[in-house]
Amino acid sequence: MPSPDIINAEAVALHAGVSRSAVSRTFTPGASVSPRMRERVMKSAEALGYQVNLIARTMNKGSSNFVGIITAGFENPFLASLLGPLTHHLSLQGLMPLLMNANDPEQLERSMQELLSYQVAGVILTSAAASSEQVERYLNRQVPLTMINCDAHLQGANLVVSDHVEGGRLAARELLRSGATRLAFVGQSEGNYSSRQRLQGFRQVVAEAGLAPLAEHYEAVGGYAAGVDAALALFAQPTRPDGIFCATDLLALGVMDALRFKLGLQVARDVAVVGFDDIPQAGHDAYALTTVRQDPEALARQAVAATLNAAVEQPFLVPVQLIQRRSTLE
Amino acid sequence: MPSPDIINAEAVALHAGVSRSAVSRTFTPGASVSPRMRERVMKSAEALGYQVNLIARTMNKGSSNFVGIITAGFENPFLASLLGPLTHHLSLQGLMPLLMNANDPEQLERSMQELLSYQVAGVILTSAAASSEQVERYLNRQVPLTMINCDAHLQGANLVVSDHVEGGRLAARELLRSGATRLAFVGQSEGNYSSRQRLQGFRQVVAEAGLAPLAEHYEAVGGYAAGVDAALALFAQPTRPDGIFCATDLLALGVMDALRFKLGLQVARDVAVVGFDDIPQAGHDAYALTTVRQDPEALARQAVAATLNAAVEQPFLVPVQLIQRRSTLE
Repeated sequence: MPSPDIINAEAVALHAGVSRSAVSRTFTPGASVSPRMRERVMKSAEALGYQVNLIARTMNKGSSNFVGIITAGFENPFLASLLGPLTHHLSLQGLMPLLMNANDPEQLERSMQELLSYQVAGVILTSAAASSEQVERYLNRQVPLTMINCDAHLQGANLVVSDHVEGGRLAARELLRSGATRLAFVGQSEGNYSSRQRLQGFRQVVAEAGLAPLAEHYEAVGGYAAGVDAALALFAQPTRPDGIFCATDLLALGVMDALRFKLGLQVARDVAVVGFDDIPQAGHDAYALTTVRQDPEALARQAVAATLNAAVEQPFLVPVQLIQRRSTLE
Repeated sequence: MPSPDIINAEAVALHAGVSRSAVSRTFTPGASVSPRMRERVMKSAEALGYQVNLIARTMNKGSSNFVGIITAGFENPFLASLLGPLTHHLSLQGLMPLLMNANDPEQLERSMQELLSYQVAGVILTSAAASSEQVERYLNRQVPLTMINCDAHLQGANLVVSDHVEGGRLAARELLRSGATRLAFVGQSEGNYSSRQRLQGFRQVVAEAGLAPLAEHYEAVGGYAAGVDAALALFAQPTRPDGIFCATDLLALGVMDALRFKLGLQVARDVAVVGFDDIPQAGHDAYALTTVRQDPEALARQAVAATLNAAVEQPFLVPVQLIQRRSTLE
């Protein structure tokens, strides 16, 4: 039970000589209140030891200010780059992120179940797709569910996705422009939705050029070490590629380092490399990786808008952009 | 008000033919319940559409399962590497992280105020230090406050810190061992506690070797671009360093790239470089940066333990370790 001597908003309003509503607005994230009024209310609140109880407010309205964010690991620089704009756009709406880390389907199941216990106002998934049962359970409770860069086959969930297919096209065109003709693709797992979409656009442009991809190589996982392994596997084949499209920048960094430090080749001159994401390291001089930039700010803004049931076209497609650097410029 | 037709735990217990306590334990994160019992309860819960209401539980006990985590940006790979273990160790205790992003003192003030509204069971700060007023406000409300790698001068807050001074010593010894005699330090801002501690250990060993640092250079901010600027500034001086200790790996990556791509020098042969943190990129072949490894898992584990008022020695010092790579090996 809350202790009976808790100072309430009326007491603060009386002390400050302002309306009850002014106190309420001061303590409602995102609500409009003048700086002078805010200062006056805060002074009285401080003097009386008042603290708004958002948990009680949640009990009164039956749903909370919480929005769950389920992410898969913080060490993936692209996923990490979504978290800043997501928390920012939620906070502009007076919402608080409940952060859950789910690296496997079992953790995802537990996390999605647990978030319902907190009466969340919505959930945003930044990587893994929810199962159709989970989506149904959320829909039954009228809790909006938004997925970023996930499979588009689930009825009822909001989808916000980068234009992966167009990104794959941009990558293929850039490799062809650089003069490459033996083109390979490196993906982070055949089950990965984004990887498959990127490959689809890539294949399309390669076919239009009258070619076929020399190789389509998948690693079981993503990341730098997988990129190293992928390059070694591709170059163990009799016909070697002269252009490689990697489905993520981390894979591309591994591919570039294997080419240079393990295979004695020169990036761009011997093999052109294009990545996807535009993580900060892609721009470091040691890599200067040509890549397809995703827009984390736009993905996050649209995901929050979709979760709040704004009229967001479904699936919402966020444009991507080719960033040309030295890895495709001889 | 919660709707009156909400299915309660008694109904689930009755349906499943188990005790009320078994239902409660099934829905209490971290509580002990056999897999068979758990399955039985979950089946009935699913059939009846039962959902535990943790918000109501919070109201009943007066404090929540929430622990605030205040971090400064997700794009700093070292800070990001703390978030996984922090959420993991909180979740083992049945606690849920409320994540807040605070890049400046004003945001920090607002975040710390807002977290109190959620009846948090504690707060962990991963970078910025709270002010003494904030610490006092938390202590008055008996909400434990733990800071990772922050200044140790605040009474009442829990402190978990890497052994920065020893790390600075290890870095200096490694540069001396590599044959460097004109040693420079690059820090990410004079106000940064970790930077200053690392410099202290560095100075000590340099002095013991009968030398004085050639230069102690601070940039206004951290990060890769600041490292590039720092190297250009150091090498614009008449006497050039042959060994550089950077207070973070991101600074060191920028320093290395400036040396190689802007100044035409060779790392290790011309200038030995040591970083701090051991972020994933330090191990990439394009850098192979010798560095002082912090232990994010231990920092997170101890921070959670300290927040839960376990008997954690104050300040709790987490050991660091030298990781030798090619940037100091000619």
